[in-house]
Amino acid sequence: MHKEKLPLALGLLSVLSGCGEKQAERPNIIFFLVDDYGWVDSGVQYGDELYPRQRMFHTPAMERLSERACIMSNGYACSLSTPTRTSLMTGMNSAHTRITTYTAPVKDTPTDAAGGTIGFVNDNEGDIFARSDWNWNGIATEEGTEHSVVITPMVRLLRDAGYYTIHVGKAHWGPSGTTGCNPYNMGFLVNVAGSCNGFPKSYYGEENYANNAEQWTHNAVQGLAQYYGTDTFLTEALTLEAKKALEQPIKTGQPFYLYMSHYGVHTPISADKRFYQKYIDEGCDEGEARYASMVEGVDKSLGDLMDFLEEKGVADNTVIIFMSDNGGHSIDARKGGVPHTQNAPLREGKASVYEGGIRVPWMFYWPGKTLKGRCDVPAMPEDMFPTILDIAGVKDYKTIQSIDGEDLVPVITGKAGPGDSVGGTTWAERELVFHMPHQWRIEDREDVDFMTAIRRGPWKLVYRMHTGELELYNLEEDLSERNDVAAEHPELVRDLCSALSSKMREWDAVMPIDRRTSLPCPLPDELKMN
Amino acid sequence: MHKEKLPLALGLLSVLSGCGEKQAERPNIIFFLVDDYGWVDSGVQYGDELYPRQRMFHTPAMERLSERACIMSNGYACSLSTPTRTSLMTGMNSAHTRITTYTAPVKDTPTDAAGGTIGFVNDNEGDIFARSDWNWNGIATEEGTEHSVVITPMVRLLRDAGYYTIHVGKAHWGPSGTTGCNPYNMGFLVNVAGSCNGFPKSYYGEENYANNAEQWTHNAVQGLAQYYGTDTFLTEALTLEAKKALEQPIKTGQPFYLYMSHYGVHTPISADKRFYQKYIDEGCDEGEARYASMVEGVDKSLGDLMDFLEEKGVADNTVIIFMSDNGGHSIDARKGGVPHTQNAPLREGKASVYEGGIRVPWMFYWPGKTLKGRCDVPAMPEDMFPTILDIAGVKDYKTIQSIDGEDLVPVITGKAGPGDSVGGTTWAERELVFHMPHQWRIEDREDVDFMTAIRRGPWKLVYRMHTGELELYNLEEDLSERNDVAAEHPELVRDLCSALSSKMREWDAVMPIDRRTSLPCPLPDELKMN
Repeated sequence: MHKEKLPLALGLLSVLSGCGEKQAERPNIIFFLVDDYGWVDSGVQYGDELYPRQRMFHTPAMERLSERACIMSNGYACSLSTPTRTSLMTGMNSAHTRITTYTAPVKDTPTDAAGGTIGFVNDNEGDIFARSDWNWNGIATEEGTEHSVVITPMVRLLRDAGYYTIHVGKAHWGPSGTTGCNPYNMGFLVNVAGSCNGFPKSYYGEENYANNAEQWTHNAVQGLAQYYGTDTFLTEALTLEAKKALEQPIKTGQPFYLYMSHYGVHTPISADKRFYQKYIDEGCDEGEARYASMVEGVDKSLGDLMDFLEEKGVADNTVIIFMSDNGGHSIDARKGGVPHTQNAPLREGKASVYEGGIRVPWMFYWPGKTLKGRCDVPAMPEDMFPTILDIAGVKDYKTIQSIDGEDLVPVITGKAGPGDSVGGTTWAERELVFHMPHQWRIEDREDVDFMTAIRRGPWKLVYRMHTGELELYNLEEDLSERNDVAAEHPELVRDLCSALSSKMREWDAVMPIDRRTSLPCPLPDELKMN
Repeated sequence: MHKEKLPLALGLLSVLSGCGEKQAERPNIIFFLVDDYGWVDSGVQYGDELYPRQRMFHTPAMERLSERACIMSNGYACSLSTPTRTSLMTGMNSAHTRITTYTAPVKDTPTDAAGGTIGFVNDNEGDIFARSDWNWNGIATEEGTEHSVVITPMVRLLRDAGYYTIHVGKAHWGPSGTTGCNPYNMGFLVNVAGSCNGFPKSYYGEENYANNAEQWTHNAVQGLAQYYGTDTFLTEALTLEAKKALEQPIKTGQPFYLYMSHYGVHTPISADKRFYQKYIDEGCDEGEARYASMVEGVDKSLGDLMDFLEEKGVADNTVIIFMSDNGGHSIDARKGGVPHTQNAPLREGKASVYEGGIRVPWMFYWPGKTLKGRCDVPAMPEDMFPTILDIAGVKDYKTIQSIDGEDLVPVITGKAGPGDSVGGTTWAERELVFHMPHQWRIEDREDVDFMTAIRRGPWKLVYRMHTGELELYNLEEDLSERNDVAAEHPELVRDLCSALSSKMREWDAVMPIDRRTSLPCPLPDELKMN
């Protein structure tokens, strides 16, 4: 009797390939990504202390997660959205994808020097630099689109390995009219609200998330008609849809990857009415209250998902990765506070390669696996590609692109420390590159536009392309990057220039064109040193 | 050794529940639904002959399917979109769901006597009838919405039985702001482009399917940003997305249900440029060429999907159901031809309970199972609920609602014929009810508004509520319903009035309110007979 039944059972085994593959060791993964969310915008201590601003925020869920998670104290993103999001999906540094600023929602529309307004493309003729030839059409999953880079998306590898892959929220890997704007092309089996847009024109259900004749732009958030005309803030609508989508893999026991990619807390800074008044009552200015209410909405989403995992009995086998896609916005008046200070003690904010633009909240929680507490190893968004695949047990995968990121699993699980080797160096000394060879907006170029940086150990070299200036900071002693010590360390400056330039050449990184010479702006090691 | 392995294998069996469940006898299903597509708008012979109009259309894929399929010569839909679509999803007659005309894209917006324009809701004050209390918020998957009916959606049962359920195209079960507009609530795991809208504001990729500031309405088709600015006609974009979504279940061997619900060939009648010129060259008027080009686009979609199934090696285990959601539109000038004649030999068109509004193209192809050729048994959209579940092998399911439809599997597979019993009668003599207690539009009420009909065998009773007139037709002798024989068959008229009224009472069907009496319009058996 056993002999007769066995072939049937074995036959069924083959069916599991790519569908169920339930194995105790394959954890579920929630990648909880917040947009434009600053390092000091919660009660979670990412740095050496809890900074004054952090007391403003009510973030019980993030704090609940932080008590059990590995907290990346030197976690970095790119300084802008699309560069980070495409790094996550490709495993490449943004200088390597040549996607070094955000993509527009419309194809063939470079956004640099565009004033941030869709359709208002304005070459920066008054500047010494002309626009560089970057990949303003983002990443692509098929050939045929100029100014894009064809890659193997990380999520496809997860899906093909049997994960149930869910996209909820903001995508922003490429414009409409291209393969890069469609989460289904990236390997997601489910898509809610992901498209070409980099922010929501409206967070309000009452406004149909801007799906109405008066407000419509490409940034109207699609796919959420169920909530039109209701008081459901976008953050909440996305959370409800995410929970709904999770029911299926939880029921069938298929491991899942949920990319919970909130539009919050990007502009437009809009009061989440569930929380706004509390912040006013506590003495926040209106802008701060608006922003903090958005943060608390996102925090509630995280808490709701954590509760949901517990109710469903899958919390113990679900990894939660919490991250922001770049530093906090620091020039929008509606956010309240004093512009350019909202990431203090970090310098500047979104779009800048100073720490305020790139150092981000980042936590890993893999129950029973990750370290509890702080991990000081520096980490980059491109690291998430091999890291997530390692967590998922996906090995021996093939990609079109060469991967720049490193697998963080050894360091977040405590199997490797800062002194251990990685990629020909050590975790502590690995070189991180941040490349922003663009004019982000018409206004506010100071400390933001046409800058590149490299970090190695405590040292950070900042290259200002406009002036050819080189700055050197010791982040261990000077987190706020106010004490330029370049003059005191000429050898180190030269060495970091060389390292940065090597990476740029290896990646064929874009550099702006100098209108005076029609030549690319020099790489840092091509500068005439004083 | 066998003894040791067996527990493992049996353990894995449990994993399959709801995920794979690959069994040779569980076929894939494609439900290919065309919108407003008339009975004589292809080269497929559904009736006793190929009527003159049919020669206008190039429909090689439909003809290819028809050569192997079971052709329902007496296949019916409701006379309007939402009633049919909600019948399919609930298994209920539209008089029973109380969704007897189409739903608006905005909640709490009855569409009857609304002139067909969104937001222009105009009670028909000039009429003797006031609007009835119908379910203008459609079907719902949760309590809490007035004017809706909470049901167990058919697709949830499929999903819960292990089907990979894909929605591509038009949904239209309910307005925005309700659970009924969201395919994910209905049990679909994938959704592309399904929402609250009943037609596309634009078919053109060049116009972003109306996602632009000039054209936007709720009928802009969402979720297709990849095709913005391209020359991809909506029908083609949906087909490409459907094929993409099919890759996953085909790869994993999970049975799939694809609801390929085309927006075509609904208004706006728009040239599909791939095919338009050919029809002009062949002598069609411009409107006919536009419409025929849309039909050929849908035909190509069917052919592409059939080719795809063959390439993937799953054609032999995939059921294809081809259907229209109501009769062909017969009052839109852009469609060409002569208004009110485009369904000839059938009388009238969409919205009318005359045959032109309800008799639709309908084919079943279940390889190796369905009859080849014509099946004359009358069939209704609510039959699809038990039929699809039977095809999928889903048994002993529970539903909130009571199901009015009958399982068609016996008749389409030849196991039952017209004389066999079903529901207390025979297939040939079963009673079909078509209820339209509304003013569809301001114009064109004649032969359309405030009418109800019942068919039994060859006989069809038509009740005009405005006048209390009763008409009787013998469809076998008078398919065009031009020869009213009510006066010759008073007994039969009385009997059919009684049958129709019984159904109406059983279902608590809505009837318009007579302003003169403030009472509901009488049921047919309450009329004072001459």
